[in-house]
Amino acid sequence: MANLPESGLQIRTLITPEGVLELSLAEVPVKPPGENEVVVRVEGTPINPSDLGLLVGGADMSTAVQGGTAARPTITAKVPEAGMRAMKARIGQDLPVGNEGAGTVIAAGSSPAAQALMGKMVTCLGGEMYSQYRTLNVAQCMMLPEGTTAEQGASCYVNPLTSLSFVETMRAEGHSAIVHTAAASNLGQMLVKICLKDGVPLVNIVRKEEQAALLRGLGATHIVNSTSPTFMEDLIQAIMETGATIGFDAIGGGTLAGQILVAMEAAASRKMKEYSRYGSGQETQVYIYGRLDLSPTVVSPGLGFSWNLSGYLLTPFLQKAAPETRARMYKRVIDELNTTFASHYTKTLSLAEALDLPTLHAYNAKATGEKYLIDPSR
Amino acid sequence: MANLPESGLQIRTLITPEGVLELSLAEVPVKPPGENEVVVRVEGTPINPSDLGLLVGGADMSTAVQGGTAARPTITAKVPEAGMRAMKARIGQDLPVGNEGAGTVIAAGSSPAAQALMGKMVTCLGGEMYSQYRTLNVAQCMMLPEGTTAEQGASCYVNPLTSLSFVETMRAEGHSAIVHTAAASNLGQMLVKICLKDGVPLVNIVRKEEQAALLRGLGATHIVNSTSPTFMEDLIQAIMETGATIGFDAIGGGTLAGQILVAMEAAASRKMKEYSRYGSGQETQVYIYGRLDLSPTVVSPGLGFSWNLSGYLLTPFLQKAAPETRARMYKRVIDELNTTFASHYTKTLSLAEALDLPTLHAYNAKATGEKYLIDPSR
Repeated sequence: MANLPESGLQIRTLITPEGVLELSLAEVPVKPPGENEVVVRVEGTPINPSDLGLLVGGADMSTAVQGGTAARPTITAKVPEAGMRAMKARIGQDLPVGNEGAGTVIAAGSSPAAQALMGKMVTCLGGEMYSQYRTLNVAQCMMLPEGTTAEQGASCYVNPLTSLSFVETMRAEGHSAIVHTAAASNLGQMLVKICLKDGVPLVNIVRKEEQAALLRGLGATHIVNSTSPTFMEDLIQAIMETGATIGFDAIGGGTLAGQILVAMEAAASRKMKEYSRYGSGQETQVYIYGRLDLSPTVVSPGLGFSWNLSGYLLTPFLQKAAPETRARMYKRVIDELNTTFASHYTKTLSLAEALDLPTLHAYNAKATGEKYLIDPSR
Repeated sequence: MANLPESGLQIRTLITPEGVLELSLAEVPVKPPGENEVVVRVEGTPINPSDLGLLVGGADMSTAVQGGTAARPTITAKVPEAGMRAMKARIGQDLPVGNEGAGTVIAAGSSPAAQALMGKMVTCLGGEMYSQYRTLNVAQCMMLPEGTTAEQGASCYVNPLTSLSFVETMRAEGHSAIVHTAAASNLGQMLVKICLKDGVPLVNIVRKEEQAALLRGLGATHIVNSTSPTFMEDLIQAIMETGATIGFDAIGGGTLAGQILVAMEAAASRKMKEYSRYGSGQETQVYIYGRLDLSPTVVSPGLGFSWNLSGYLLTPFLQKAAPETRARMYKRVIDELNTTFASHYTKTLSLAEALDLPTLHAYNAKATGEKYLIDPSR
């Protein structure tokens, strides 16, 4: 391993017991690969909302201050009391960030599986991807097709597998159509393409006319605007037309998840011939898979008694899924990497640029259609 | 059927399109029994919260006015706009009330099963029990042991089977301890006795010191007061001690259901060695089975991603349960009718007295420990 660098830079996030968030670049040793491991030089790693949740924690970013040098910038911000309570378990731990990414294998262990990846471009689900070098088990890496760039391969896991898992979950739980919120997101666009291809009716909830237009351009047919005065009636109509009884909500806070349950119950009730004080009996399910809104989830009565509201996360889904299901999902991501699962990035940043305060404010706004990539090799 | 009365009185509840709730006594014909049916002279039928939900609907009972005569009283009240929306499906329908009750079989169809009940005291789950006479399929009736009074047998279904179903659901879903709210209710007291007998750890959430004392008197050990300043910490401690990961909530509105999920997640997190931004991974479930509070359910973040909040109702549980499970539950109710499942009534009312306005205000207050019985044969 003569050519293995001794150390590399990595983004760290720390919340101190005094209530201060500290973001910094740490120099960490590169761990030589074990028998079944490879060392990846990370060349593209996306900033997903789930990464931001860890990076900025419960901090009030309007209090953020730039520190350090241009090469080794730091950012500090105050964490309000509510944030400290929510972040209790991580206080005092200097944590690495970055769920997924792609890069070149620069060292490999002795196993044939590890050796087969030597010099190849791979995509990885490994955590700590906001690092120049990352030592990973081969099971955490997939080889990308010849000629794929790190940018093209950086986002193979979180959004593609999550959107695919929605359709798998729908089928496994006996539903036949889906309601999706924040539907114009990167993930939402993938879901539109998957559902069109698979013939699954999809109700897309957006907040803006531009988002509706974007989805129409992809071929989406059922689009409902949550800021419209006729929103609830539009949603009930779309649910009656599609028969959707499962929903996936990226927003979490506020009334939207509950409104979907109410609309599903209303759609089922309108098909009933007789009044029942216990509602339609239709089983309905909304999964909250993101927390774009950190305020409490507010659910009104009027849902009947067969409703379910649950948390949702990709990892437990994958752990419970049959191996053939997982294999089918991975294969589809690679096969459709430049079509269904293509990601577009607003800007590519170095590790240091990712800790530039105005840049952080820009990507932390989580604006629809905006997505940032970090290239730690820059 | 020479001895069958031609008609009988029955309580009715109507919401008019103009937004008025009208309660009245209607004279309805007694339906002669079919081959497999019996006619029951109802002698005891409890006023459960689920009955009140139908009886007073979404009306504002502070606007209620008494009308009619002493023998045929009526009550009218205004239904506010929000109530009208929630009650949309029942507007204009004059509905009978009363989930369960007991009485004497005064006529029976020709089948052996029906004939076997002739002259016997039976307990029934049939709806419309706030009636002098009720014609029911034998499957909706259970024969009570010799010497049981209608008062003793009136509440065999709703509270006994619901509390038993909690323990069945806990086992079926792989949990080993339960959290229960409004725990000093009639149903809550039954659950305390069941859990003590079956060795199931139970966390009882109450609002008042008297309620805690009442439950301690029954042998309950884990009692938490939701009005205490240390409530959340007490709840987390009780959950850590019992290992409860399933809860049943009778209140529905407000923050309590969500607080139980937060406390379960906090208890699981405290047992973790390493921080995970995705929480403990512990699967948690809270079922809302009642709506003592009709305001929205408010769920804070901090639940992890493996939480479930769902509606719960006895009827679908029984429909899905194996026949041997149902048989075991029914047998236990009859076997323990005067111990585990004994109900105590504050007052017994005639049908006309149930429509006396001050009396209605009294039972509609749903005060803990107060429970009313109607005897339509009076």
